[in-house]
Amino acid sequence: MHSFEQLLADFESRFNTRHFPNEPHTLYDASQYILGIGGKRARPVLCIMGNELFDTIKSSAWEVATAIELFHNFTLIHDDIMDQAPLRRGAATVHTKFGTNTAILAGDVVMIMSYEYLRKVEPQFLPQILGIFNKTALEVSEGQQLDMDFEKRDTVHIDEYINMITLKTSVLLAASLSMGACIGGAGDRNTHHLYEFGKNLGIAFQIQDDYLDAFGDPVKFGKQVGGDILANKKTFLMIEAMQSASSDDKSTLQNLMSVHTPDKIKLVLDIFKRSGVDAWAVALKNKYLDIAYTHLDEIAVMNNRKKPLKDLAAFLVQRDY
Amino acid sequence: MHSFEQLLADFESRFNTRHFPNEPHTLYDASQYILGIGGKRARPVLCIMGNELFDTIKSSAWEVATAIELFHNFTLIHDDIMDQAPLRRGAATVHTKFGTNTAILAGDVVMIMSYEYLRKVEPQFLPQILGIFNKTALEVSEGQQLDMDFEKRDTVHIDEYINMITLKTSVLLAASLSMGACIGGAGDRNTHHLYEFGKNLGIAFQIQDDYLDAFGDPVKFGKQVGGDILANKKTFLMIEAMQSASSDDKSTLQNLMSVHTPDKIKLVLDIFKRSGVDAWAVALKNKYLDIAYTHLDEIAVMNNRKKPLKDLAAFLVQRDY
Repeated sequence: MHSFEQLLADFESRFNTRHFPNEPHTLYDASQYILGIGGKRARPVLCIMGNELFDTIKSSAWEVATAIELFHNFTLIHDDIMDQAPLRRGAATVHTKFGTNTAILAGDVVMIMSYEYLRKVEPQFLPQILGIFNKTALEVSEGQQLDMDFEKRDTVHIDEYINMITLKTSVLLAASLSMGACIGGAGDRNTHHLYEFGKNLGIAFQIQDDYLDAFGDPVKFGKQVGGDILANKKTFLMIEAMQSASSDDKSTLQNLMSVHTPDKIKLVLDIFKRSGVDAWAVALKNKYLDIAYTHLDEIAVMNNRKKPLKDLAAFLVQRDY
Repeated sequence: MHSFEQLLADFESRFNTRHFPNEPHTLYDASQYILGIGGKRARPVLCIMGNELFDTIKSSAWEVATAIELFHNFTLIHDDIMDQAPLRRGAATVHTKFGTNTAILAGDVVMIMSYEYLRKVEPQFLPQILGIFNKTALEVSEGQQLDMDFEKRDTVHIDEYINMITLKTSVLLAASLSMGACIGGAGDRNTHHLYEFGKNLGIAFQIQDDYLDAFGDPVKFGKQVGGDILANKKTFLMIEAMQSASSDDKSTLQNLMSVHTPDKIKLVLDIFKRSGVDAWAVALKNKYLDIAYTHLDEIAVMNNRKKPLKDLAAFLVQRDY
């Protein structure tokens, strides 16, 4: 058994290489660039952990882990184009640095390269791994489309939002675990519970992300507080506030969504606090975290094998702030 | 053995279905849309023919054929965004009809779905098919990038242009044949010659395409004559003319590339004819066609098995106009 830190270091040392041919450098340098601006590498580590929960790490798991991280980076390149985001992790986004046309193509080849790593998976696992990977890849794209669709709508129900965020974020975490489990030889029941653990952990993570954007310590969080409010994003907090705030506060919120005043962030945060949205979000996050841990408990392996997963979950989602 | 027409009809009847889930329709309707605006379906038919050249048609070949046609359509969606093309086959392009963001994502899911069809290939063929498919997919992307790079350059050497067009167009035709051959149980030598047949046929096809854009009968060709000239494209003809025209004609061409006069097409065509570029292009096309047929001759199967391929080649590339 390896700790989360050990697996992360091992993956990083394998992943920190050039994954593309040299030429045409006008294309492949753009693809390689996004891999160099960092990232938590949580998904590939989850894949390896999913394997090691059931058996020693197989070489196929490293191939799938690499494929997953590449796929994730492909989505970042294309999402940043769609969101017109100038920065990611403090660095220029691919389309900002290399132009939109090359960024579209650079994203495409990162995705194709993820399938090239999948090809190296032992043939006995390949059809099943490809099946999970393809299904998840479609779901992640659906999540991105729903996110764009919701931006054009006046109201979004909380269940719709959870469905969107599940597709956009959580299913890839869940599938990373279950593809690892598949290679580790897990049965259907254990794989199901591991998938549900990852899915619910991902939802809890996203609720935390929305919460921290509004209420986080900007120094610890590393982002400007209130970015979602400035961008008029329909986050967990905004959707709930539009539901539970007083009618006066609701119309104030509606008005604030269409203006850019200097005190916009402060005014929205005041409403969030007044309507108890902060405590609601913490409770909702803990609810999904509890569901996640219940599924982890259901997996029929020795408890000490689950420790690295619990450590990673704690690293991703804190129970209290 | 089946004729080209029979295989085309069979493929069309299998392919004319919805390949995507219904929801979110904002995404998947855009993906399905491009499949409905037609196309020659030459690539999937080549795949089936590659199989049938060596053995009866296996169900895996139909899956690969579908994957190839989907992949080709994915490249069309993204290329049309990069080229800012308003029309394809007389219909609005995906980004024109559904917006650029959805078009990026619609292209992505068409590509993912092509891998989902590959997943259905019999496991014994899967790793090899995936290998050819991935390699080709990267090459096609490289070709598109080189095409964009060349547009920014003053001069492009004919060898560079042939390399670009080989990547952008020919390797997918060649790979369609060789993936079919793989499923048909062909050996390395036969597969190699079939691949080279497809590759050289593809180059001949592209030379013909450039030729017809300048000298074709607009009624038979179905396109405006001189479109490439108006767009200042560095086609086979333009590259050769910049090489072989008189120095006066060369400077006239240089000037015409930077202006939009009503008689631009006529003036460029006059220079093309004066410098013999029209006859040169026909000779070059026939050279690649000859190479293609030499490779077809080298394939060790009964001659009558090659007839459907010869018919398809003749349909795609005419020896005379």
